Amino acid sequence: MKLQNFVENHWVEGSDEGKPLASAIDGRTIAAISSKGVEFGAMLDYARRVGGSNLQKYTFHDRAHMLKALAQHLMEHKKEFYALSTETGATKGDSWIDIDGGISTLFVYSSKGRREMPNDKVYLDGTPERISRDGTFTAQHIFTPRQGAAVHINAYNFPCWGMLEKLAPALLAGVPAIVKPASSTAYLTELMVRRIIEAEILPIGALQLICGSVGDLFEHLNCQDVVAFTGSKGTAEMLQQHPQVIAESVHFTAETDSLNSSILGPDATPETPEFDLFVKEVVREMTVKAGQKCTAIRRVIAPAAVSGDLVRALSEALGRIRIGHPANKDVDMGALVSHDQRDEVRERITMLGSEADVVFGNTDDFDIIDADAKKGAFFEPTLLHCERPLTAKAVHSVEAFGPVSTVLPYENLDEAIELSRLGGGSLASSIVTNDNKVARKLVLGTAAWHGRMVVINRHCAAESTGHGSPLPHLVHGGPGRAGGGEELGGIRGALHYMQRSAIQGSPETLAAIGNRWIRGGVEIESDIHPFRKTFEQLKLGDTVNTKEREISLADIDHFAEFTGDTFYAHMDEQTAAKNPFFEGRVAHGYLIVSFAAGLFVDPDFGPVLANYGVDELRFAQPVNFGDALKVRLTCKQKTLRDGSGYGEVRWDTEITNQNSEIVATYDVLTMVATDEEWANVSA
Amino acid sequence: MKLQNFVENHWVEGSDEGKPLASAIDGRTIAAISSKGVEFGAMLDYARRVGGSNLQKYTFHDRAHMLKALAQHLMEHKKEFYALSTETGATKGDSWIDIDGGISTLFVYSSKGRREMPNDKVYLDGTPERISRDGTFTAQHIFTPRQGAAVHINAYNFPCWGMLEKLAPALLAGVPAIVKPASSTAYLTELMVRRIIEAEILPIGALQLICGSVGDLFEHLNCQDVVAFTGSKGTAEMLQQHPQVIAESVHFTAETDSLNSSILGPDATPETPEFDLFVKEVVREMTVKAGQKCTAIRRVIAPAAVSGDLVRALSEALGRIRIGHPANKDVDMGALVSHDQRDEVRERITMLGSEADVVFGNTDDFDIIDADAKKGAFFEPTLLHCERPLTAKAVHSVEAFGPVSTVLPYENLDEAIELSRLGGGSLASSIVTNDNKVARKLVLGTAAWHGRMVVINRHCAAESTGHGSPLPHLVHGGPGRAGGGEELGGIRGALHYMQRSAIQGSPETLAAIGNRWIRGGVEIESDIHPFRKTFEQLKLGDTVNTKEREISLADIDHFAEFTGDTFYAHMDEQTAAKNPFFEGRVAHGYLIVSFAAGLFVDPDFGPVLANYGVDELRFAQPVNFGDALKVRLTCKQKTLRDGSGYGEVRWDTEITNQNSEIVATYDVLTMVATDEEWANVSA
Repeated sequence: MKLQNFVENHWVEGSDEGKPLASAIDGRTIAAISSKGVEFGAMLDYARRVGGSNLQKYTFHDRAHMLKALAQHLMEHKKEFYALSTETGATKGDSWIDIDGGISTLFVYSSKGRREMPNDKVYLDGTPERISRDGTFTAQHIFTPRQGAAVHINAYNFPCWGMLEKLAPALLAGVPAIVKPASSTAYLTELMVRRIIEAEILPIGALQLICGSVGDLFEHLNCQDVVAFTGSKGTAEMLQQHPQVIAESVHFTAETDSLNSSILGPDATPETPEFDLFVKEVVREMTVKAGQKCTAIRRVIAPAAVSGDLVRALSEALGRIRIGHPANKDVDMGALVSHDQRDEVRERITMLGSEADVVFGNTDDFDIIDADAKKGAFFEPTLLHCERPLTAKAVHSVEAFGPVSTVLPYENLDEAIELSRLGGGSLASSIVTNDNKVARKLVLGTAAWHGRMVVINRHCAAESTGHGSPLPHLVHGGPGRAGGGEELGGIRGALHYMQRSAIQGSPETLAAIGNRWIRGGVEIESDIHPFRKTFEQLKLGDTVNTKEREISLADIDHFAEFTGDTFYAHMDEQTAAKNPFFEGRVAHGYLIVSFAAGLFVDPDFGPVLANYGVDELRFAQPVNFGDALKVRLTCKQKTLRDGSGYGEVRWDTEITNQNSEIVATYDVLTMVATDEEWANVSA
Repeated sequence: MKLQNFVENHWVEGSDEGKPLASAIDGRTIAAISSKGVEFGAMLDYARRVGGSNLQKYTFHDRAHMLKALAQHLMEHKKEFYALSTETGATKGDSWIDIDGGISTLFVYSSKGRREMPNDKVYLDGTPERISRDGTFTAQHIFTPRQGAAVHINAYNFPCWGMLEKLAPALLAGVPAIVKPASSTAYLTELMVRRIIEAEILPIGALQLICGSVGDLFEHLNCQDVVAFTGSKGTAEMLQQHPQVIAESVHFTAETDSLNSSILGPDATPETPEFDLFVKEVVREMTVKAGQKCTAIRRVIAPAAVSGDLVRALSEALGRIRIGHPANKDVDMGALVSHDQRDEVRERITMLGSEADVVFGNTDDFDIIDADAKKGAFFEPTLLHCERPLTAKAVHSVEAFGPVSTVLPYENLDEAIELSRLGGGSLASSIVTNDNKVARKLVLGTAAWHGRMVVINRHCAAESTGHGSPLPHLVHGGPGRAGGGEELGGIRGALHYMQRSAIQGSPETLAAIGNRWIRGGVEIESDIHPFRKTFEQLKLGDTVNTKEREISLADIDHFAEFTGDTFYAHMDEQTAAKNPFFEGRVAHGYLIVSFAAGLFVDPDFGPVLANYGVDELRFAQPVNFGDALKVRLTCKQKTLRDGSGYGEVRWDTEITNQNSEIVATYDVLTMVATDEEWANVSA
């Protein structure tokens, strides 16, 4: 099996025989890898020219639909991914994180793309900024897709998830990707890319694959490209300093080494549920993927008073871990990815040994189920204990990328904070405590060093996703040693592939660019009430200006009696006047908006089907009896819900009084039928 | 006058005699500058240890109040800033941008900090993410201040604004700053820092100043520090590649060279107002600050058909510019900052000359008012014209940092887009057109290359702040050649000085960390209705669970008649059933929330003073007559308005029906009196 590269919409083989890739379980060669002869500059150009323009013909919702279709398609091929994944040393549970975890990232991005982004090509960032007195000149931040390629350089430990977690946000943003998996497990990535390409769900050019070296690709980067790197800090630094990256200010994000810590709270003594939860969490993080997880717990920070108990409990639990062939159902932990990796882990343990004692593992004398220790890269879980962690260096800087952790005792919370910080920046951190004051102190003391923090207690443990699981909803990345990058985090992850620009101009111009009407823009009035228009017929700016309605004292009395809202400010002139905001009895806010609806609603059966909500209602000043109100209702934003027969329409609403003073502003949210749906419904 | 450094709360002089700084107007030495002997590592340590912890004792609102006090204090000293600013070659108008513009940045950040950030130490980013089925485990993104120093390296052209636009967001975030102004105009920065320090508004350690070289400061940076650089791309690249910056993944933002362009739309022919606006804008951008603005228009992109007219009109207008002593009221344009700068500009014009012809200026034969051409760094505005801009290189890459622009003709919009992109990334771009379709096409085609874009037409021109003015509300920075950084943009600018972390845990734990109650958290019920509690007495989680109220058909009929909202879905069983969302007549949404208020309101005079709004009201399912509704109202978030006597309290509100199904959810916003205010009001 010789892995191929997917270049400019064609599968091509490297021109030399390639580097052999060995199975983690028995060392036999299962593939060869080479990208020799690939023209990397042309790949970048193809991505920008063909992939980018193809992707950007679509809206965010269109691309979100593609992600869902892709996820569904990959679900159908799960079996072969799982089978091949075994060769990487992964158990079924490990593969689940990689394969199902990766596919679920596509589902989440699909869902978030449709719920949190517009069905449009421009993403509006925040609301208009008021920058002129009369509002004839205003401003809006927008995000547009970078007009370049997303170069994704992935680590060996998650050949599927590692690709998909970067791919989902890039594609949603509209940016084509060039994926370069780490060699040792690239065969699984290549298989998944084949299935993706075969599905013909993505437009041509949206995805290319490099199996092997990236050659001179970096020489061809420009200011519109994005590099997202996962791997060692050393490699990240080298790439980040590449003259072209520097010259073009290429957007570069890195997710690298991480001496992640977990802190056991001082309240969590051995008899508490939290102590047991902590032991379980540490053991799980040490053994899942044989500890080859960039988020795994490397530093176990625990009260000195219980560190003896903890070491005993962890050692016992680690002693129960069954190591062997990952396909065997009795096996808890498979193999490291390669012999090289095993040698490196052992070497790192030796470095740690200068400051910490091995208290469990690191022997060659352990049982292996169904496999040959000499052929496979099996490794015993290894626990160390460092007596003076505050003055130690190696335990805070040497990452043994395998089933290895070190216990670091602390005397008080300030010490625990200091130990956590000594990691120099991490992807993930956890705190196990049932004391929320302790949680707050530890989080505020260490959050600036961590991209993600999990607080586990007896109340959330059953549903907790655990210390080491990045979620597509949450940011992934960390400062300092962790690379200083950020990925995922829902829509935030997509925005990293886009450029934020502040746009200034007239309300009309900004509405034309962002497809959202802005106060001060032209109001289109006609004889046809906008509630009589279908989704397609409605235009931004379509407006009703209602007649006036006076609010009487009787109205206020009546509304109070009817609703039961007899708040004194509505009922009692004298007491109301004692309220610093009022001069006497005022109308209920809900009365004002109810009357407003009475004014703007067109009552007959029509394409506007339902009011599903209200946003940002603000009462600007009190309404007293005798005041006469009128309403302006303007079509502000339209979001088509593809395939549903309707779209969401947001109406900018302003209630004014007889002096043209603004009384209330809000957005009314409605569902409006499409032409087709309206024809059906009204038939 | 020897400039001093402000180091660890003391003014200290460099240990050597320093480098002399010359007046831009007459070349006489007005100060000497040196930072020799300063211990830069100790400065960083002092900032982190003393400045950071002092600043972070306060809330965002506290620090926002400091910014306002600082702005007011600096306003009182404006006169001496203006006087000294003249020496930099700045006219009164130029100084206004620098001095008043800088101070207004403090005002805007103060206002935004109080309106858009909590009166707390943690900034919540978005709403909780649903990551578990039962909601016992949830997540919230937060921002906390980086635990390091903000190193601000500023350019010579805006010695005041350049400092303040970086200082305001850093201080608001809670991060202490070390300011290093460019030498040639550092005397003005030093004066302003003296006034800031004397005011004793900022806590000790919040601000330090380096006048001169930064020595070995970069050797001491760590992963919590931030470097914000403004200056040449070359220097930025050198600093960005510093081994310590790379090793520690120091957050680095740069704002550098920029070949900003302005595009004249094809509709804007010589007889249109837009043509005249364009001429005015280009001339203004060329001559304000004698063109020494990183946002100035360097590339004038215009339809080939009118480029002759345009060159004539620009030349005429440039011919009317009066050059001379900036303090003279008749002078339109002052001097460049130094003779070196003048030499550099001339050299750059020579480079441009290989591809473009000088069509105005660049002579030594021009009138100078009230000054000596030999002593001062005066320079004539210079316009070039490039006949084949699509194949040219220099006009898109050589920045002549003075009153210099080049006209680049285009044949069609695609060419205009291509020319704009050839700048390789800019801070600012403008488009002058009265055709919003042209505006949309140009913005979508070029936004990914620009941090800010201005569209000018006859409707917004009077209130337009112009092509070259960064505003504190809007992001400032751009991709590629512009450095790839981002500053300002309101709160966005402060967030660059903070670390985003995803926090996972139980709703109770997250509420303890973020001071915002989360659905699923503990509801505290007592005999005392929460409306009877003052701001201080209210606790997050304080809850009313109301009794039930049944909605009758008569209620719906009555509400319709009373409000006038006779929408068919409320009135007509048969037609309502045709609506895909309903099975028959449904209650009005406003009726539901009005009845809800009737249920949860405690009517008597009490500390809850007023309902000022509603957020995120969503109707989850229809309510039919016969349904019985009840309400849960829970204290969700408290924001004290210092000095006002009240605070804002946000209530999480949920309406359920007799089957415990959610009917509606929303946030009710109220003003609640403090203990003191309530004692006054109720006295």
